[in-house]
Amino acid sequence: MIAAAAPAHRFAVVSDSNVAPLYAARLLSQLADIGEIAPLCVIPAGEAHKTRDTWAALTDQLLDAKLGRDSTVVALGGGVACDMAGFVAATFMRGVPVVHIPTTLLAMIDASIGGKTGVDTDHGKNLVGAFHQPSAVIIDPQLLDTLPLAELRAGLAEALKHGAIADAAYFDFICRESPSLLAEDPRRRDVLALNHVIEKSVRLKVGVVAADEREKGARKALNFGHTIGHAIEMLSGYAMRHGEAVGVGMLLEATAAEREGITEPGTAARIRNALQIAGLPVVRPAGPSATSVLQSMQSDKKSRAGASEYAVPSRIGVMAGAEAGFTVRLPDAVVAEVLA
Amino acid sequence: MIAAAAPAHRFAVVSDSNVAPLYAARLLSQLADIGEIAPLCVIPAGEAHKTRDTWAALTDQLLDAKLGRDSTVVALGGGVACDMAGFVAATFMRGVPVVHIPTTLLAMIDASIGGKTGVDTDHGKNLVGAFHQPSAVIIDPQLLDTLPLAELRAGLAEALKHGAIADAAYFDFICRESPSLLAEDPRRRDVLALNHVIEKSVRLKVGVVAADEREKGARKALNFGHTIGHAIEMLSGYAMRHGEAVGVGMLLEATAAEREGITEPGTAARIRNALQIAGLPVVRPAGPSATSVLQSMQSDKKSRAGASEYAVPSRIGVMAGAEAGFTVRLPDAVVAEVLA
Repeated sequence: MIAAAAPAHRFAVVSDSNVAPLYAARLLSQLADIGEIAPLCVIPAGEAHKTRDTWAALTDQLLDAKLGRDSTVVALGGGVACDMAGFVAATFMRGVPVVHIPTTLLAMIDASIGGKTGVDTDHGKNLVGAFHQPSAVIIDPQLLDTLPLAELRAGLAEALKHGAIADAAYFDFICRESPSLLAEDPRRRDVLALNHVIEKSVRLKVGVVAADEREKGARKALNFGHTIGHAIEMLSGYAMRHGEAVGVGMLLEATAAEREGITEPGTAARIRNALQIAGLPVVRPAGPSATSVLQSMQSDKKSRAGASEYAVPSRIGVMAGAEAGFTVRLPDAVVAEVLA
Repeated sequence: MIAAAAPAHRFAVVSDSNVAPLYAARLLSQLADIGEIAPLCVIPAGEAHKTRDTWAALTDQLLDAKLGRDSTVVALGGGVACDMAGFVAATFMRGVPVVHIPTTLLAMIDASIGGKTGVDTDHGKNLVGAFHQPSAVIIDPQLLDTLPLAELRAGLAEALKHGAIADAAYFDFICRESPSLLAEDPRRRDVLALNHVIEKSVRLKVGVVAADEREKGARKALNFGHTIGHAIEMLSGYAMRHGEAVGVGMLLEATAAEREGITEPGTAARIRNALQIAGLPVVRPAGPSATSVLQSMQSDKKSRAGASEYAVPSRIGVMAGAEAGFTVRLPDAVVAEVLA
């Protein structure tokens, strides 16, 4: 399948220190079957390593292995591995193909879809990067059997986001099925429900991205929960998982938008319930002041002309601000109140 | 003009330590006229600074200045400034516009045209980068009045390349006009001839790039002289100018291709004459062995499956290998002979 996506190419595998011991050998042996001795590049697991330094080190490993323009980078891992491998591929010799093999729910339904690649800097998340669509995304739901439950929960937060921005019935489906999706023992999970979540979310995200790859309008809907979410994730020193931060971000952004009359009353409560059913946090980590969260948001990519913009639903399943590029402005004072 | 290319944007100016003292104040005051206080980012002049570290430092300066997605990067300088600023723009917040204001002949007719951006690594030139087309290129031939003559000569090597790959009459024009193009005193130069060179080369390159932006075929013609040229430039520690190295590269590649019967006899001699008339070197720097030049070429982007490929004319004005994507293979032994 990889060979079909990138015929006659050489390959490099980028994985992380959690995933490589579990699945790299199998992938490398499959590549060996098609005659390819691919270098394996392992990065330390965790968002803290999604940096320009890691990107440069990966690039140098590819160059050391004498890979040329006819190379394909294969990402095997979660969101960080996909984002990093994607950015390496986007910039290696001015762009070579990337194939994603996501191993977390979040990466399957979010990071591997849509072509956003990038790294973090001290100023914030994903501030450096490129749009670079994968040549293929290979999703094997069985890989989730080894995923820690907390990571599965975090992935479900992005699925809830998909329901919240575009499909109320899907949102309700996730709430209803959360217990069976999140069984501690993978063998007790409802495989059909899990496959439905993956397929539904992937289709939904692909549809949005295909309509607006460069995020000039409709794609902004996918940023629901991310303006506040990115800031609290970063201020936690990435101790908080991306999905967890997005969950809290959705709740806080919806709360502020309700106060402004943009979002239907009761929406934030439904989001809170959904997060709680999924065992996800509903309060941001204590520590950073509301002011420091607001300040951090201002260096976010979604900041324009000094003011932060938000993508929020008008009610579960329908976005607000369709007439204004799916962007609404919320007064800093109201956001600060909600953050406090 | 910049404002027209990127309306309602904020700007950052990237220049180098040679050019900034000459022209940055004028540009910043023009930006101030449209209400923009643009940060000026000055990089040390020279290819040795075209690195990932410089790229990261420039990016951080933009972030420190609180520039967001609605920013445009303006390059003011030679090839290094254009390549660097272009790569910063390509990756800043996953891509913002870039406007080039080239100040060298080489940058006017080559680096600023075609969207190739990138930086060097220890493994070679431009191994990391992206395709990112400029929103505008503003060429003011008067800026060449302050350009050192050796830089003007080096730029003319790329113009000779344009003639050699696509237009024999243009090649002859440059040879004939070299003395008046290269007068020591800028006031004695033939302005019309110089403008003709700029316009002709820009049109020629734009035409090639428009037909094949991602260098799958026809654009490879522009690499004539660059396979050997990049290697000897890098092995000189960038003491040799890019244009000078490309000139010698054209001569050596044509010589090897003549021996292989790919290029018409006498072609290399015409290239040698043209380089000498323009006061450009016709031998590579002593020092590195033929073997080390060949080795260095193998980590070049133009290396495929272990063998180096070349783009060479079949005669002045016409490329060889049109049926094979404008790519010919030359035996390492023959190239080594020519390098020796």
